[in-house]
Amino acid sequence: MEDTLGRPRGPAWLPCYVVGSQVLGLAVLAITGAWMTHYRGGFAWEGSLQFNVHPLCMVIGMVFLCGDALLVYRVFRNETKRVTKIVHGTLHVFAFIIALIGVIAVFDYHKKQKIADMYSLHSWCGIITFTLYFVQWIIGLVVFLFPGVSISHRSRYKSLHVFFGVTLFVLAIGTSLLGIKEKLLFTFPSDYSQFPAEAMLGNALGLLLIAFGVVIAYIVIRDDWKRPLLPEEQALSMDFKTLTEGAESPGEQ
Amino acid sequence: MEDTLGRPRGPAWLPCYVVGSQVLGLAVLAITGAWMTHYRGGFAWEGSLQFNVHPLCMVIGMVFLCGDALLVYRVFRNETKRVTKIVHGTLHVFAFIIALIGVIAVFDYHKKQKIADMYSLHSWCGIITFTLYFVQWIIGLVVFLFPGVSISHRSRYKSLHVFFGVTLFVLAIGTSLLGIKEKLLFTFPSDYSQFPAEAMLGNALGLLLIAFGVVIAYIVIRDDWKRPLLPEEQALSMDFKTLTEGAESPGEQ
Repeated sequence: MEDTLGRPRGPAWLPCYVVGSQVLGLAVLAITGAWMTHYRGGFAWEGSLQFNVHPLCMVIGMVFLCGDALLVYRVFRNETKRVTKIVHGTLHVFAFIIALIGVIAVFDYHKKQKIADMYSLHSWCGIITFTLYFVQWIIGLVVFLFPGVSISHRSRYKSLHVFFGVTLFVLAIGTSLLGIKEKLLFTFPSDYSQFPAEAMLGNALGLLLIAFGVVIAYIVIRDDWKRPLLPEEQALSMDFKTLTEGAESPGEQ
Repeated sequence: MEDTLGRPRGPAWLPCYVVGSQVLGLAVLAITGAWMTHYRGGFAWEGSLQFNVHPLCMVIGMVFLCGDALLVYRVFRNETKRVTKIVHGTLHVFAFIIALIGVIAVFDYHKKQKIADMYSLHSWCGIITFTLYFVQWIIGLVVFLFPGVSISHRSRYKSLHVFFGVTLFVLAIGTSLLGIKEKLLFTFPSDYSQFPAEAMLGNALGLLLIAFGVVIAYIVIRDDWKRPLLPEEQALSMDFKTLTEGAESPGEQ
């Protein structure tokens, strides 16, 4: 099936899932923002409000933008691989910068308020996830964007890159849940069980984060929704297969 | 490549990853048991020790046994599909019963101690994960073990079953992390930041749970480690393909 411009049509249900993921993602951002402004006093780079920069930046960078970066190869199905790579890479540039601001915000806040760093499970998971994300980012940049790397190296690394991309995205969501839990137990050390509105908002945010993660993972993992090779990539793939008989095919991205 | 009995050899590195996953899984069980006995007084069905049954049962049932059930189709590569299904189903029977004991333990403990139920993000995630696990368990039982269901229905549901199986396993690990965090913040409301030994053990347990989940997910998701069809299944698959031209092939499990 082709559209009016002669391009192959994508899977029928894919757009519904993509729209659903964006509704969930925007709800996550809106609720994080509303929680920090309505209940926690808003944002600033000084004083106690500096902490609030941390959850918002981490959710925008490590969850929303990373999730959307995973979708690029499913949404831009008919663009060239070069274009999809540039969009994927650009989203990760913004994701990394915004997440870095979030990391700096919490360390700077702890330093000014003389609060110990790196003692909690949230902080351990967070620093491991962020460090591995940076490593994955650098390796991805070198392997997929530098012109000197051979197709066979790219092909061999690709499945690892996809697996660790999804894994780090899931870890970012897990770390966010731990952060929500930590914030709620610090805020309501004895009255969390009274179902205060702020705590229920935090719980709901946790469930929305999980729903966003599940929908994104489903779109990325579903085999028949993978980006098909364009005709010129197919030809290249056949050449590569012929040249390296017995080696893996570059396959789909 | 075939072994001395003429059966095809599995992928070379798969056994190392499987052994690694079991070492991590057993470490998770040992540390959970050690935490509850050494720091929390051990196990009983009455009094304050009843709570300790909950984390141990949930980790054995929803994490360790569910993780191992996911591996069955990779480890028993040369057994018939019937045998692998029975092993997979049996592991899930034990997983469900043990997890159910863990769920009953915490509700019964709360009731006796007059502690509110279902207010925390951990409890929301836990009850959703356990309920969906039960639903997946029932649907899986009906679709894959009842003789009346057609191959085409089994084939269509299979990829969803695998996706939700891995998702629920990941959710069980995420819920365990929230449980660890909750326990540590209730135990150390003000001195978690002093790096007490029990809290560091809890943090380490969290990282081991993540490592176990990542290794299991990697083994299950890796395409070239999927269970190959046996010769008789291949013949059946070809018949089915011919009969339902245009429909999906049963493929690999």
